[in-house]
Amino acid sequence: MEIHILPERGLWPGLSRRDAVAEAHEETARIVAEVFDNVATYGDKAVREYEKKFTGAVRESLRVAEDEIYEAAGMITAELKESIEKAAANIAAFHGAQKMHRVEVETVPGVVCSQRQVPIDTVGLYVPGGNSPLFSTILMLGVPARIAGCRRVVMATPADATGKVHPAILYAAQIAGVTDIYAMGGAQAIAAMALGTESVPRVYKIFGPGNRFVMEAKQLACYRRGTALDMPAGPSEVMVIADKTASAEFIAADFLSQAEHGPDSQSILLTDSREVLDATVNEIERQLSSLPRREMMQKSLEHSRLIQLGSMAEVMEFANAYAPEHLIINTADAEALAGEVRSAGSVFIGQWSTESAGDYASGTNHTLPTSGYATAYSGVNLDSFCKKITYQRLTPEGVESLAPTVMVMAKAEGLEAHSRAMEVRKEALKKSALC
Amino acid sequence: MEIHILPERGLWPGLSRRDAVAEAHEETARIVAEVFDNVATYGDKAVREYEKKFTGAVRESLRVAEDEIYEAAGMITAELKESIEKAAANIAAFHGAQKMHRVEVETVPGVVCSQRQVPIDTVGLYVPGGNSPLFSTILMLGVPARIAGCRRVVMATPADATGKVHPAILYAAQIAGVTDIYAMGGAQAIAAMALGTESVPRVYKIFGPGNRFVMEAKQLACYRRGTALDMPAGPSEVMVIADKTASAEFIAADFLSQAEHGPDSQSILLTDSREVLDATVNEIERQLSSLPRREMMQKSLEHSRLIQLGSMAEVMEFANAYAPEHLIINTADAEALAGEVRSAGSVFIGQWSTESAGDYASGTNHTLPTSGYATAYSGVNLDSFCKKITYQRLTPEGVESLAPTVMVMAKAEGLEAHSRAMEVRKEALKKSALC
Repeated sequence: MEIHILPERGLWPGLSRRDAVAEAHEETARIVAEVFDNVATYGDKAVREYEKKFTGAVRESLRVAEDEIYEAAGMITAELKESIEKAAANIAAFHGAQKMHRVEVETVPGVVCSQRQVPIDTVGLYVPGGNSPLFSTILMLGVPARIAGCRRVVMATPADATGKVHPAILYAAQIAGVTDIYAMGGAQAIAAMALGTESVPRVYKIFGPGNRFVMEAKQLACYRRGTALDMPAGPSEVMVIADKTASAEFIAADFLSQAEHGPDSQSILLTDSREVLDATVNEIERQLSSLPRREMMQKSLEHSRLIQLGSMAEVMEFANAYAPEHLIINTADAEALAGEVRSAGSVFIGQWSTESAGDYASGTNHTLPTSGYATAYSGVNLDSFCKKITYQRLTPEGVESLAPTVMVMAKAEGLEAHSRAMEVRKEALKKSALC
Repeated sequence: MEIHILPERGLWPGLSRRDAVAEAHEETARIVAEVFDNVATYGDKAVREYEKKFTGAVRESLRVAEDEIYEAAGMITAELKESIEKAAANIAAFHGAQKMHRVEVETVPGVVCSQRQVPIDTVGLYVPGGNSPLFSTILMLGVPARIAGCRRVVMATPADATGKVHPAILYAAQIAGVTDIYAMGGAQAIAAMALGTESVPRVYKIFGPGNRFVMEAKQLACYRRGTALDMPAGPSEVMVIADKTASAEFIAADFLSQAEHGPDSQSILLTDSREVLDATVNEIERQLSSLPRREMMQKSLEHSRLIQLGSMAEVMEFANAYAPEHLIINTADAEALAGEVRSAGSVFIGQWSTESAGDYASGTNHTLPTSGYATAYSGVNLDSFCKKITYQRLTPEGVESLAPTVMVMAKAEGLEAHSRAMEVRKEALKKSALC
């Protein structure tokens, strides 16, 4: 862990830097481009061959059948089922409240403009496989997609070597209302959803996390096909803001929870209290000793930072410049500080609000912008599954109100035919008035 | 113009295809990457050298000074000023109505989740130069940015050979509330805004149209720096839906208005009436003969299509699959059909609602998704200048409500430390209850 006591302002940008692991990008890009070419040419056959090569899985069909999905429910504990259902209900409650009313304004007499939230017809959700079945991610993506009203909610997730998908993943998909499940992973799964194959429908937007091949494939789908993406990817991160009232035990637990995500995830503590900073260092050591995955967590902690600043005003300035994915405000006046947040993915207000709550079940989404992208990007929310379409309706009166403005501007921009399209309507009204 | 009478369904996908002009992409990408490298290394100096090379313009400063902006107001007609002000007022009225109320939900007792629309601190607007000064684009981007509350609204637009920016552009920028104007264009302008230089602030999101170098530069900014973009680019297009009640004169005027945008813009007529289709062909010939830019417009009309389908149900199905940028519904039951639109940028309802109205002054935005991107992307709207940040606050009761769910799910995902972060809080509550 790095400890910085009252660093000079000139050092702040360096302390805000994410030390992302440099990857062999060109090689990844080459492999993924080849996968796209093969899926474009050979469709399902190419996907199945990649699946066999990378996971050893041989399935009769990429599509997961209804009976496989129903069987899954019998293979997980009642306790886990109930937890998945409760989390889904909270996510549904919060995302359902994000439904937008139609906006309608008569801007000038006879000109009514409106805006509606309309679902994206077909979306694709990617859920990584591996040892940890990330069924929480399915709830975070599938529940809002269903509430938005997407007609087809396609999910791709890799099977294990025996050709099976983890039952908790299938159960969560069922609860979330996913309509089409495919046992496929990696770049080939993204390519299949972006391009469409014999059995996989083409989707218009792709959501979800993944390894570097999956991320490169999402980028390539966006670049080649204009497939929309949820957001750019980066390692997960948490920033904790603490004053002298904060419990070092809670801060340490939040740091370790973040460290568990992977060796490149980052935790940052900002505090105006040297005592809390020192106590947190001790608490992290203490709690770490009783946790699994210690080695990986220690790697993550290496590039974590504990920073003492001169005042809470400085703390907020630093936080807004960093634009953290998760921001925990563990102070006495947490609610007031939350009002000063200008850039963050999701904010956890007060000592009882741990990141884990939002990761699983508070109701907010856990798919959030990392790496400073919170300066311009939102986390996944109901809008992520919708377009906003605008409408305008002009009456004859509206033509009269608007024509002079439109015609003057169009002519000044050198667009004569734009002016004429208004003019022919104005003339038609004049003629009909003369009749 | 292509005419298709009752084409078989198998032909529909071909008829929905955009015939975008293939460009020398690799060469463009190479040039733009070099521009980025030079701007990253040499900052303002590189930008000024590119400006001199491409426009011949030599200015003392890239930044447009206050007195240049004030002078501009004296150089355009009172009529144009008034039109710009009226258009800005309509855009402000409609985009102001898009402000979102805070969403707040208590998902379970003691767990309050909320969502707020928060402005992006610094945005960049690109406005092309050339013969037609696109001051309307400044209103469409600058007015919503101001209403959203963006602190810095940076605009880049190239100067002419004498080093001057068109006065109508400066006037519109002043009305829109742009805070920083730079006389620079092309890939170097995008690089300067994405990377930041001595005089140009780094922006988090870039908006606006441009030539292929500008578009490639926006893509590269997104790829290299995670700079957010308004949407992917493509040639402009209009789809007109008409029944037998429609005036061929109006349809033709709308086609020609679209054709004026450039040789690769596309117009499509969908109708169930052969008579209207034939009359439109004749009207286009007639109106074209009295318009400037005829040669370019004829090029655009070459890949425009007039299609007769069997019913209005088929028409709507085709329209939703095509996902047009602009959709004019020129039918007797226009309002009802507008309710069936699932994918479009902006919809013009009824015979009096010409695209020109929305291009300039109805109040809706004219920066819209082309090329079928309306399947997943929205046009520019107030949200485009905001992030949606989520918040959660747990009380001790909230910890009790949520802890079992979070702990079961975290453990099932193999994330022990996530479970602990909840558990330490539960334990602390138990202890304090015992005291």
